[in-house]
Amino acid sequence: MYGAGDVRVKTVADPILKEPTDAIVRVVRACVCGSDLHPYHSMPYSEGGNPMGHELIGVVEETGAAVSSVKKGDFVVAPFAFSDNTCAFCLEGFQTSCVHGGWYGNTEFGGLQAEMARIPQADGSLVVVPGVDEASELLPSLLALSDVYLTGYHAAHMGRVETGKTVTVIGDGAVGLSAVLASKRLGAERIILMGRHRARTDLGVDFGATDVVAERGEEGIAKVMELTGGEGTHIVLEAVGLMPAYEQAFGIVRPGGVISRVGVPQYEKAPVGFGSLFGKNATLTGGPAPVRAYLEQAIRQVLNGEIAPGRVFDRTVTIDDVPAAYAAMDAREALKVMIAF
Amino acid sequence: MYGAGDVRVKTVADPILKEPTDAIVRVVRACVCGSDLHPYHSMPYSEGGNPMGHELIGVVEETGAAVSSVKKGDFVVAPFAFSDNTCAFCLEGFQTSCVHGGWYGNTEFGGLQAEMARIPQADGSLVVVPGVDEASELLPSLLALSDVYLTGYHAAHMGRVETGKTVTVIGDGAVGLSAVLASKRLGAERIILMGRHRARTDLGVDFGATDVVAERGEEGIAKVMELTGGEGTHIVLEAVGLMPAYEQAFGIVRPGGVISRVGVPQYEKAPVGFGSLFGKNATLTGGPAPVRAYLEQAIRQVLNGEIAPGRVFDRTVTIDDVPAAYAAMDAREALKVMIAF
Repeated sequence: MYGAGDVRVKTVADPILKEPTDAIVRVVRACVCGSDLHPYHSMPYSEGGNPMGHELIGVVEETGAAVSSVKKGDFVVAPFAFSDNTCAFCLEGFQTSCVHGGWYGNTEFGGLQAEMARIPQADGSLVVVPGVDEASELLPSLLALSDVYLTGYHAAHMGRVETGKTVTVIGDGAVGLSAVLASKRLGAERIILMGRHRARTDLGVDFGATDVVAERGEEGIAKVMELTGGEGTHIVLEAVGLMPAYEQAFGIVRPGGVISRVGVPQYEKAPVGFGSLFGKNATLTGGPAPVRAYLEQAIRQVLNGEIAPGRVFDRTVTIDDVPAAYAAMDAREALKVMIAF
Repeated sequence: MYGAGDVRVKTVADPILKEPTDAIVRVVRACVCGSDLHPYHSMPYSEGGNPMGHELIGVVEETGAAVSSVKKGDFVVAPFAFSDNTCAFCLEGFQTSCVHGGWYGNTEFGGLQAEMARIPQADGSLVVVPGVDEASELLPSLLALSDVYLTGYHAAHMGRVETGKTVTVIGDGAVGLSAVLASKRLGAERIILMGRHRARTDLGVDFGATDVVAERGEEGIAKVMELTGGEGTHIVLEAVGLMPAYEQAFGIVRPGGVISRVGVPQYEKAPVGFGSLFGKNATLTGGPAPVRAYLEQAIRQVLNGEIAPGRVFDRTVTIDDVPAAYAAMDAREALKVMIAF
C-alpha cells in the first residue's frame, strides 16, 4: 500500500531466513482484513510503500536451525501476530503481548498478502494442520482461524459469554459475524446482531443470531433496550472500532455487564466515567486476539465439521486482483476476500 | 453542605416514614467519606444546602407497614445505597443499579450524617447484626462495612484478585487501605501500595501490603515495573478517582491484566485505545460498590474477628464537630473520621 486507496502488486525478493527461529512458508491462501481498510482510508503517501496482510495458511518450505515443531512440507496456520509461546505473557494466554512477538504488515517483517512469507518465532507461532492439503474444502475455514474467527472468539471469550447470557454484537463485518458464531458455540441464549446489510445479517442468523437490529445510534440503543425488556444486554461484542459503536455499546450494556472490543479503536480517548461505564459497573475489555491461544481447539473444530467460519469469505481473487479486493471490501460489495495462489 | 468548604450542623425536622417500605433508624455511628471531599472542593454555593453522608450503623426505631425483615430495636448496618434486593440487577449482585434503589446525600432522601435517618427499601437494604449493642468494641469495623471496606472489597472482587496474583493499590486513603485488606483476604501473593503518607502506608502494611511505593506519575510507574520484573501487575485497584491515578493504572497493568476502579471518577473521558488499554488487552472494571451483596459475609467476618476494617478510623467526633472533621480529612490530618452520637 502506497497511500490511501493505492494498493499495488509488486515483485520483490523472496523472503529468506534471518533468524534461526524463522520459517519460510509458501502461501496457499491469504486474505484482506477489515483492519486493512483503516490505512486504505487514511495512509499518507509513502514512496517505498508498506507490505500488507497478516493472515495466511500455507506449506512450510524451509526452517531455521532452531525450529523443531514444524518441518518442510507441513501444512500450517499462521496467527496474525507471531509469538514465542513460552514467555510469561504467552503462558497467560496473551500471545499478542509476547516479549519476542510482533506484527506483520511492515517493512521489518513483511506482509502476508504475498506468495512467500517469513514467519518469525516459527515454533511458537505456526500450528500444523494434520491431514489437509491444498485441495481441501476446508481451506477457507482454516484461513479464517488466522485472524477473523478467532478474533470474534476472543471478543466472546473476554466478554465471558456463557450459557444463558444475552449478547449483542455490534457490526456485521466478518469479525462481527464470527463473534456471533463464537457466542453461539459458547452457549449464549440470545444473540442480537446490529447491522444493516441484509446479506451479512442473513449469514449472522445462520451463525446463530436470534435478532437483527438495523437501526444505529440512539434508535439502535432504544431497539436493543426494548428487546431486552429495558434491562440491556449482559455482553456487548464491539467489532467495529469507531466511536459511534463504542457509544452504542455503553448505551445498551446492562448494569454489571461487559463490553468486549476487538475492532481496533480508531480513537484513543472515550467516555469511561460515571455516566458511561462506572455508574453501572460496566466492564470494558478486549484487545488484539491472542489467536495462538485458541488455535489448536479451533483447528479440531474445523476438521470435525463443528464450525465453518470460512463462510465469511464471499469472493476469491488471485494475487493480481488484490487491489480490486480492497476496493470491493471498501465499497461493501464483498464481505471478506480470499486470495488464492 | 452549603458550598465548597462550607459544612454546617443544622437542626431539621425528624425524618418520618414516607413509604410503607421505609424504616427510621436512630444513628449510632456515621462517618465522613473520601467522596464527600469532592463537593467539599467544588460545590457551588446553595441557599438551601445539601444533606450529607451515606454511611451509618444504628438501631431501628420504626418501620413501615410493608417492612418484615427488620423491627424496632434491631441493630443494623445500612449500605451507602439503598436497594430492594429483589430486582433483576440486585439478583445479579449489582444492587447499586437497583430499579427501586437510590442514593443518600440529597434533599429527597436526606443525609446519614444525622441523628436520625429514613432508610427507603428497608427490607432490601438493612442487615441486622445479631448480638451487638451500642457499647460494642466492634462498632468501627461494622461502620466500615457501610461503605469503605466493602468498596475496597468490591474493587478486589471485580478485579478478580485470587491466590498468586500481584495486586497494586493506587491510593492510601481509607478505600485504598481497605482494598489492601480485601486483596490479602482473597489470597493476593504480592500487594504493592502506592501512597506517600507514612502513617497510612504503615496501616496498609499491617493490612497486608508487601511493598510501598511513594513515587507518583512516571517515577511511580517505573518503580512498580521494576518491582514486577518489568512485567507489570496483574491487577490494579484504583481508589482515587483522579486522572493521574488512572494514567498510573494503565502504565503498570500487565498485558491481560485488570484495572478495577472504585474511586468515583472526577473525569468522564479517558484513554482506552491501542496505546493504553486495548493494545495489551487490559480490562477496565469497577463502579459503585454493591455493598449489600457482600454484607452478610463481611458482618460474620467482623463478628468472628477475622477482619478489623474499622482501623481506618483514626478520629471520632460528635455531630457538632462534623465541620472540623471535613477540614481534618481535607487537610489529611485525619484518615477517616467517625461520628459518635
